Amino acid sequence: MNQNQTILIVGLGLIGGSYAKGLKEKGYAVTAIDVNQQSIDYAVENHIIDSGATNSIDFIRNADVIICALYPTTMIHWMKENQQFFKSGIFITDVSGVKCNVVDVIQSNLRNDVEFIASHPMAGKEVSGVQFSDSNIFKQANFIITPTEKNTERGIAFARELAETIQFNRIVTLSPQKHDEMIGYLSQLTHAIAVSLMNANDNPHLKEYTGDSFRDLTRIAKINEIMWSELFFLNKDILISEIDSFQAELSNLKYKLQNNDEKGLKQLFIQSTERRKQFDKE
Amino acid sequence: MNQNQTILIVGLGLIGGSYAKGLKEKGYAVTAIDVNQQSIDYAVENHIIDSGATNSIDFIRNADVIICALYPTTMIHWMKENQQFFKSGIFITDVSGVKCNVVDVIQSNLRNDVEFIASHPMAGKEVSGVQFSDSNIFKQANFIITPTEKNTERGIAFARELAETIQFNRIVTLSPQKHDEMIGYLSQLTHAIAVSLMNANDNPHLKEYTGDSFRDLTRIAKINEIMWSELFFLNKDILISEIDSFQAELSNLKYKLQNNDEKGLKQLFIQSTERRKQFDKE
Repeated sequence: MNQNQTILIVGLGLIGGSYAKGLKEKGYAVTAIDVNQQSIDYAVENHIIDSGATNSIDFIRNADVIICALYPTTMIHWMKENQQFFKSGIFITDVSGVKCNVVDVIQSNLRNDVEFIASHPMAGKEVSGVQFSDSNIFKQANFIITPTEKNTERGIAFARELAETIQFNRIVTLSPQKHDEMIGYLSQLTHAIAVSLMNANDNPHLKEYTGDSFRDLTRIAKINEIMWSELFFLNKDILISEIDSFQAELSNLKYKLQNNDEKGLKQLFIQSTERRKQFDKE
Repeated sequence: MNQNQTILIVGLGLIGGSYAKGLKEKGYAVTAIDVNQQSIDYAVENHIIDSGATNSIDFIRNADVIICALYPTTMIHWMKENQQFFKSGIFITDVSGVKCNVVDVIQSNLRNDVEFIASHPMAGKEVSGVQFSDSNIFKQANFIITPTEKNTERGIAFARELAETIQFNRIVTLSPQKHDEMIGYLSQLTHAIAVSLMNANDNPHLKEYTGDSFRDLTRIAKINEIMWSELFFLNKDILISEIDSFQAELSNLKYKLQNNDEKGLKQLFIQSTERRKQFDKE
């Protein structure tokens, strides 16, 4: 990447807009396309992008780098329809929260003179829309590059350079399979839990008695149902397996309670505490 | 309560120490007893209390108000052993996280010229010890008073006044039974979930890929096994029932996934989002 290049953001939502901000902060020329004219207008007025449009083949033709910040299924369709307009040699990346049923589909149907190198910015907010975009959400976050056999060293280096430019905290590489297993546990299972906890009790007075633990566990229970149902179904088998593993652990804890196994219950708490300490931010 | 009174904190840990700080900020005389001399010394050196001791009947005799910040089982024992030294007419309250199997036991064995009015400060930290005490933890928190038939209006007024002095955000009253049901869901179930989530996967590399959602859900997975096993067993039946309800919701979500019920899954997300919005701090 270099600052003579024009970077096109496809899909100017929270993440696309936050990438745009991060890139403009570093002096890059940033354009965008989105179906929503108001998002484009807002972003231009607020200097989030240099220019944009709801539908313009010219923007695609002029892009030196493409960041596709669309939902996975929409992205698959968009890539198929628009790759004919890509510059030869271009790199394209994404922001999708699942990889296995997405990357291979895209790469199998791609021109062989462009490269799609998938990646995942592990960051977000519980709101959506370019008006909430904020490049700071990436600065303490992890960035996962998910190369396949069809990717090159140059493609991986491009993704790495993008992440360094945006100032992600840590950049790691995983296969799409390992990524989806990890996401199934760390991200999707956590959302399934938060939603189920929120739905398990409909007492309207609970907020008068609540403490921080409940708020923390349900912060992500405010959930974008369009994006998250798509992600869940794309990673269905792995997620079901993670739900089963978690349910087994919780049943094990319940069993200790039912059987007055104080020592066993304490051991679960001790193990949990030890593991959690490893997750404390350095 | 008035500032001529001496308030005795029994058990100078995180909560006892934070109460002491909150009361001294308002000009009260505060003493403490604790089994740990170092805690007493630290608190005196740092002006958290005026004076204290590891074991002194005189401190008990001189107390005009007692805040018993011990773990429930220890408190039951302490009350039995030491009530003989209480001033006549004294109010005693606690900080215990469960009420049903605690309050009635204490009140059944209490001198009839003193009053035990139970309460619960819905606040804490994932660390323990007087060195972490901080009266600010109460300022955004809920305070629950749990009177029984044996409590008087004056007793309830005392507890309310204590909470106002410490500057809790909201003061509510619940029966011990309703308290324990509420705690079973909002606090104990959330801890059971966090611990089980943490224990469901032992991959040591996960922290390189994690995002905020996992950190939020497992913040309370760092858990004091002594206190929490006690609280769990004291509220065992209610907690098991809450675990069952939660597991039913999660199984329902899994069922939607397995059956490709996109509409049903979205509906769970929409319901969760609506309910969570009600919990946003005002």
